[in-house]
Amino acid sequence: MKLHEIGEFGYIDRIAKRFEDMSSPGFLGIGDDCAIIPCNDSEDYVITTDLLIEDIHFLKDRITPVELGHKALAVNLSDIAAMGAKPVGSFLSVGIPAETKVEYLDDVMLGYHNLSRKYNVPLLGGDTTKSKEYLTINVGVVGKCLKGSARLRSMAQEDDVVCVTGFLGDSSGGLEVLLHQLPETKDNLHLVRCHHLPEPHVNEGLWLAKHSVIHAMIDVSDGISSDLLHILKASRKSALIDIDKIPVSETLRKVALSQDWDLERLITAGGEDYVLLVTLEANSFKEINTGYKAAFGKDLYQIGNIIAGESCIKWIRNNDEIVLHQIGFNHFNKA
Amino acid sequence: MKLHEIGEFGYIDRIAKRFEDMSSPGFLGIGDDCAIIPCNDSEDYVITTDLLIEDIHFLKDRITPVELGHKALAVNLSDIAAMGAKPVGSFLSVGIPAETKVEYLDDVMLGYHNLSRKYNVPLLGGDTTKSKEYLTINVGVVGKCLKGSARLRSMAQEDDVVCVTGFLGDSSGGLEVLLHQLPETKDNLHLVRCHHLPEPHVNEGLWLAKHSVIHAMIDVSDGISSDLLHILKASRKSALIDIDKIPVSETLRKVALSQDWDLERLITAGGEDYVLLVTLEANSFKEINTGYKAAFGKDLYQIGNIIAGESCIKWIRNNDEIVLHQIGFNHFNKA
Repeated sequence: MKLHEIGEFGYIDRIAKRFEDMSSPGFLGIGDDCAIIPCNDSEDYVITTDLLIEDIHFLKDRITPVELGHKALAVNLSDIAAMGAKPVGSFLSVGIPAETKVEYLDDVMLGYHNLSRKYNVPLLGGDTTKSKEYLTINVGVVGKCLKGSARLRSMAQEDDVVCVTGFLGDSSGGLEVLLHQLPETKDNLHLVRCHHLPEPHVNEGLWLAKHSVIHAMIDVSDGISSDLLHILKASRKSALIDIDKIPVSETLRKVALSQDWDLERLITAGGEDYVLLVTLEANSFKEINTGYKAAFGKDLYQIGNIIAGESCIKWIRNNDEIVLHQIGFNHFNKA
Repeated sequence: MKLHEIGEFGYIDRIAKRFEDMSSPGFLGIGDDCAIIPCNDSEDYVITTDLLIEDIHFLKDRITPVELGHKALAVNLSDIAAMGAKPVGSFLSVGIPAETKVEYLDDVMLGYHNLSRKYNVPLLGGDTTKSKEYLTINVGVVGKCLKGSARLRSMAQEDDVVCVTGFLGDSSGGLEVLLHQLPETKDNLHLVRCHHLPEPHVNEGLWLAKHSVIHAMIDVSDGISSDLLHILKASRKSALIDIDKIPVSETLRKVALSQDWDLERLITAGGEDYVLLVTLEANSFKEINTGYKAAFGKDLYQIGNIIAGESCIKWIRNNDEIVLHQIGFNHFNKA
């Protein structure tokens, strides 16, 4: 059987099923942004890990080593943020092709270290090995949160509003710029920067998790059509999303128009924005948003609602319900 | 600058130096078999991670997928064992080339699952992505131990005896069999089995860590000449090792003789045996060994002593001190 026949998530389900016979009290395993490991009476640890491989996740001649180091850590910090936890340490495994210069690796570590310092996350360990051909980076991050406060995908409730903590589509716009080698205009470079230097919403996640009216959280890594579906499946709910309410940067709007890009596809199915997708009690939205705005100088963007139903996203455009066929990123889609 | 100019451990020192400006109380970072993360008043967590890349760490046409799954987890459990900790959960990242069959991956997970069950270590999370060409596996394992009981490389004391918990050289003998495609005799297959299906000394590590006379521990992954040196550097001691006392299996002795292998090189510099290298109070050795033998039906093999001096191994053969030039495995040695 070929992998694309079952897809990335089918394969993960297959692994999870095999391990159903093993579990430990207080532990949460496969199926959320992070696993949970009990710490003490008042705290839990959360752990996530992400693998980046050259020519799959990045092109060495398009991303600078400093950006690569930043991004490798950022995507993991984003998973910690999605649990509402505080990152406390990271682990880095690197597989290095023989011809790689030490100076290149130093720059990777410079980007990694800069972001580590920003969120005060020490590097605690890892592994360094040779790689045959492709630079390979696996990062793991450990976070900490109050016991029971981690936000799970399964926590969405009917009538919750669905919000995101930032613009969608900029990162996949940046990828389009790179893939089509568009000229280095200010706008194009901004989008590429969003793709290469995503800012994990660690502080936003910590702030949100302090409020009990915040229910489910996930980070947008594969596009909301895919990531929201994870919440809906885990929570056994559906959602109504108003495409016109999805926050889009002026830059993306402008470049998409000039390049004749399918903007709707970029903002619903484009991945790697690493903003948080959050569901919260509808009648608390206004109060939460006021506090959030005071803390971060920006709005929580309300894009829809959780409704009853079995794991389906209903999309609204111009007040009409429409059917979208695009799906988010999946590593084993047929090319 | 090229990587082989500074070597694997020079590169790790370079990374560790960059992160010297960050640390957290109760945490132990880079520099031991595992990092330590404080848990509660009476316990600590330890964490390790290892990256395996096709054609660097394994050849897909020589190792079966079931063996590969076993080995990927075993090498990490061995690091947990070297801390004297109990493994409590694992994380698995896999980078998968497009043409890989689901059945192959199922077999990898079968081997991984079998070993997970043996030591009751649930799989808690991970990442699955595409890989361009080489199957790539990163495993992380979390273990738990009594606070302050983790055995560090820095704990060796002068006059300690140095012991190992099993035969050395069998695994690198197995690698020789594979590389030279020797015939599938019973003896050759046994050595290959030692190379592909190492048994992590988890229970041995747990038993040893219960005794305060056990000082430093490390697992033998790169060969004792390299791994013992890690203990000596961290403890600022030297060691006197009697080559004639290194335990060698009858099988390896026989095959090495018939193939004219340099047996001394295999047992001092050959890696991947994943036995534990332990230092303990000399006058407790007899009592410890009696208890160890009762628990495991085998001896602790005493191979030498810790002596004063700055991080140097003195080798004895036939009661004469000799100089050995071989060094253990290092990923960035010049080919």
